[in-house]
Parts: sequence; structure tokens; C-alpha cells
Amino acid sequence: MSSVTTSGKAGRPRASAPKQNSALSAREQILDAAAALFSETGFSGSSTRAIADRVGIRQQSLYYHFAGKDEILAELLSGSVRPSIEFVQRIEERVPDEITPAGALFALASIDARTLRQTPHNIGTLYLLPEIQESRYDAFRIEREQLRASYGRLGVAAAHPDVAATMGEDRIGAILIQLAELVIRLRRDGGTAATPEDDDTTIATSCLRVLGLSSAEIAAARDEAGAVTALSASL
Amino acid sequence: MSSVTTSGKAGRPRASAPKQNSALSAREQILDAAAALFSETGFSGSSTRAIADRVGIRQQSLYYHFAGKDEILAELLSGSVRPSIEFVQRIEERVPDEITPAGALFALASIDARTLRQTPHNIGTLYLLPEIQESRYDAFRIEREQLRASYGRLGVAAAHPDVAATMGEDRIGAILIQLAELVIRLRRDGGTAATPEDDDTTIATSCLRVLGLSSAEIAAARDEAGAVTALSASL
Repeated sequence: MSSVTTSGKAGRPRASAPKQNSALSAREQILDAAAALFSETGFSGSSTRAIADRVGIRQQSLYYHFAGKDEILAELLSGSVRPSIEFVQRIEERVPDEITPAGALFALASIDARTLRQTPHNIGTLYLLPEIQESRYDAFRIEREQLRASYGRLGVAAAHPDVAATMGEDRIGAILIQLAELVIRLRRDGGTAATPEDDDTTIATSCLRVLGLSSAEIAAARDEAGAVTALSASL
Repeated sequence: MSSVTTSGKAGRPRASAPKQNSALSAREQILDAAAALFSETGFSGSSTRAIADRVGIRQQSLYYHFAGKDEILAELLSGSVRPSIEFVQRIEERVPDEITPAGALFALASIDARTLRQTPHNIGTLYLLPEIQESRYDAFRIEREQLRASYGRLGVAAAHPDVAATMGEDRIGAILIQLAELVIRLRRDGGTAATPEDDDTTIATSCLRVLGLSSAEIAAARDEAGAVTALSASL
């Protein structure tokens, strides 16, 4: 995986020595540099020229990988939801025969929080950009909508009857996905927890608490999720 | 008071004729037009010239009221937290003799959610702008930090012992203030509830559920909060 064979792209001209991340492919280096720039100076303030400079390649070389910064942003955004969608598609098939809705939801929220916690340069902060509403980001918005729908289905099935009756599936989906996305703000505002994984657990636990589950029910869901995510890591 | 709220999605094209807000002062019209532009085209893409055009005044007249768009944004941001801070300062003095921490927290979360739900053009979407980290927005960040601290104090006092022990005051404050801020995303993504006030109640209820309170405890807190906020509306 990591052996240092020269790739076909190694001979491309570079404007200067690469600044960092030499273990990443050129494409990944561009994504990483763009995420850093977007989060530091904003999307509209970042040019493909500045991205290329940061990677240490020529602007022309950047266009070999991406049509422009819109495409880079679209890829970063999709990368922040895709792992959660892939996970939830597999887990929903197993509800309720092999895992309870609460267990599946705990697992989903944990994995979603972890994914967002680990995105390069916290690119989830870009979710609120006005540009995201434009049609060129349809793919991301559709993926996030799919994820929201899964949160709604699992949430309404897991919820205490009081909560399911007063909130309904749509509101439950909206609140749960946004609870998972809190990790974006926690990461930005509050530093990290002593053990960063604790935030994933805190968020997954909070999702079940919002649905009215007791501490004992949450502990059981957490155990179920632990078994499933350990399995999924080995797939 | 009510002419400036829009439930629409940011970024949707809008008829360019100046709005009818003739009941607003010139200063308020500028704030309203700026909020609309910032949410549609982003902060960095909005000029003071475009703001002035939208109000139907000359750029020079805008500078009579504001030094520039930074000052306009600072004022919009402060306006989105100030009512909640003023409220919580009064209510915290009355805890626990006249109101329980849970009752005070329910009231705070309701008022905070309502304030954010009613900001012109949902300017809470600008909370994640990278620019907000710069020193000229210190006043807003300090105010929001004050509010977060109040959420933490009330939250840890109201929480089920299990939750207080595992999450701690800082994380509780961070999660609760962000739960209230979910209304920004609900407003943007999910349209409005059948009765918009329902979202305030849903959010306040969710804050107490995250803290591990039972449905009966939440109902009691809601009654307490109803009495207090009715009083505060009459002050």
C-alpha cells in the first residue's frame, strides 16, 4: 500500500517543493490544500491558483485533476457524507432481525460523528455556504438528504412513543443528523475532548436521549453498536 | 417586527425591487438588506454598494449609518444573541429559589430558538463564516461564549446525575447552545413546522432530553418556563 514506487505523475513539473503530506496522491494533496484554504479564507476568497501554490504545483496541473474549485468543493462535501451513507445502507438491511433500531442508530451516529471529526480541516464548516444551494452541488445535497431520511426512519422506530408522536419522522431526521453535525462546531469551538472518540459517543448517546431512551436502553444500544461497528471495520 | 422574516431558502433568486419595509428606520432597512444579500450571495460577495442599491439609497448614505459591511455584520450577529443574553441574566438570578434549573433552561432554549428563528433572512447561517474568527468580531464571539457558559451552568444543574458525570459542564454548554442553533438549519433545510413555535418547543424539549430528564420532568419544566416567559414578555 505504501511502498514508494514512482507513479506516472511523479515527473509533472512542480512550482516548488511540496509543503506537506507527501504520502498523499496529487489528487489528495489538492483536496487537502483546498480544504485548508476554504476553511481559512472562505470559499469565495480562494482561487485555484492559491490552491495550486499551496500544494506546490502549477495551476495547469491542478486542472489535470479537477475542472475547478467547484468540483473540488463538491468532492470534499461528498467525501464527508459518503462513508455514513455506505454504512447505513448496510445496517438498515439488518434492522430489526439482527440489530434493534436503537443499536443501528447509535452505530450510525457514532460513525457519522467520527467521519465529520476526521474530515480534512473540518470542511463541514462549509455546509452552510450559500453556494451549496446551487444546482452544481445537487449530488451532495441529495446524499445528505438520503442520510437525513435514514436518521428519520431509524429514529422514529427507536423513539419512545411520546417522542415519536410529538416530533414525527421528518423532524426527528432533521434533529438527529444535525446532532451528529454538532461535532463540526465542537471541533471548531471547543477544542477536542480529552479522548476525541468520546465526542462520537457523546453525540450518539445524545441522539438516543433526544428520542427519550433511558440510560439502560442507551447502554444496550451502545453494546449492540459496538459489535456491529467492530464487524464493519473488519469487512 | 414581522415583515423581515423569510422562511425561504437562502440562495434562491429574488426579485430585485427594493423591499417595502417602509416601517423600518433607514438603519434597520440597511441591516435587513444586508442580511438578505449576505445569505443569498455570501458575505465576501456582497458590497456596500449592492446593499445600498437594495435599500434604494446612495452608498454615501449607508456610510452615515455604518463604517462598512464588517460593522453591519457585527451588528446583525450581536442582534441574534443579545435577547437571549439579556433574558438569561435575569433568569439565572432567580435560580433555584423561584425557578428550577430545568425550568430556566427550558425558557432560555425556547427564547433563544425563537430569536434565531426570527432573525432577518436567517443570518445565523453566517455563524460559520471563517471571518467570524477575526478580532473585529470579538464582541459577538464573547457574547456567544457568555451564552454558552449560561447553558453549561443551567444544564449541569438540571442534568440527570448520569449525564452530568459523563459529559461535564463544558460539553453540556456546547451541546445545548448548538441544539438551540439547530433552528437555523431547520429553517433552512426543513421548511417550517406547521406551527413555527412548535420548533422552539421541540428544541427546548430536546435540550432537556439530552440531559436525561423524563417526560414528566420536562412537562413540569415547560410549565415553569411558560409562567416565566409570560412574565418576561410583560416586562
